[in-house]
Amino acid sequence: MNQITKEDIAKSIRDIPDFPKKGILFKDLTTAFKKPEILTAISDDLYEYYASSGITKVVGIESRGFIAGSILASRLGAGFVPIRKPGKLPGDTYAFEYDLEYGSDTIEIHKDALEKNDIVLLHDDLLATGGTASAALELLKIFEVSNVMINFIVELSFLKGRDSLSDEYDIYSMITF
Amino acid sequence: MNQITKEDIAKSIRDIPDFPKKGILFKDLTTAFKKPEILTAISDDLYEYYASSGITKVVGIESRGFIAGSILASRLGAGFVPIRKPGKLPGDTYAFEYDLEYGSDTIEIHKDALEKNDIVLLHDDLLATGGTASAALELLKIFEVSNVMINFIVELSFLKGRDSLSDEYDIYSMITF
Repeated sequence: MNQITKEDIAKSIRDIPDFPKKGILFKDLTTAFKKPEILTAISDDLYEYYASSGITKVVGIESRGFIAGSILASRLGAGFVPIRKPGKLPGDTYAFEYDLEYGSDTIEIHKDALEKNDIVLLHDDLLATGGTASAALELLKIFEVSNVMINFIVELSFLKGRDSLSDEYDIYSMITF
Repeated sequence: MNQITKEDIAKSIRDIPDFPKKGILFKDLTTAFKKPEILTAISDDLYEYYASSGITKVVGIESRGFIAGSILASRLGAGFVPIRKPGKLPGDTYAFEYDLEYGSDTIEIHKDALEKNDIVLLHDDLLATGGTASAALELLKIFEVSNVMINFIVELSFLKGRDSLSDEYDIYSMITF
């Protein structure tokens, strides 16, 4: 039996001050993913939450969202779809540009990545201000997918990223700081 | 029983001409990963090959190597470790710079990612000229890990990337073009 708790998972995440820039306390999940028992616990927790949801595609956001996103896709018997930075996906893509504190960023998804009747889980490792996740939802809207759920391993609740995501979605964050 | 063959997996990979630059025929695995039955077949094939190898860490190369790499880590009960482009890993890193056709590139790994006694599988989605994989092996040498295996989903054998990797390693490529 797996005795690893969410507190154990939370403790395995490393705080890195001033990354990627001064004033930001970065939550580093690599120290969690490298530990076999923690990676297993993360995978088990996500699987248990989504096992009966009928998910057909897990959409992971580049690149930290590829890790648990693809594990979950595999365990659920779903497909895995990447959302990437501009110019990284080789086929025809839809792109969405969104504002950052300074400047803007763009993310892309392949035009043939999803079907209207897919049941989609959007996954990223971390919810901060919600800018990237909101942009990813805009990409999903292009496909007219009606069944979308959202998952993060970590949610930084003090940044209120959840407020930028519509109430219509089921949002599951495994760990909240 | 899983009836998907390696030929089915190979056929699900899309050819993209002139990506990322003119003259290169890019093997696009996103069309394989998005299909549940193909992702399952890839995962099953890798699991069967490595099930009894005692692997403790799967090291995946950013960012396409994160997908099947993390799935395999999870299935083997191993940890997952990312190798990334410069400035992406937040903790203290080892870096290795390697030559490209024009210019150079650098990859990094966290200094606390591996232990000397780890049994390591280095994974990337594709072996082309072998430049990145060779550089990744140099990073692994810093940890003095003696037990290293190497895996690719696709090997482009006409580019002879295997020649740039030492004979001392077990190299398994699922599909060879």
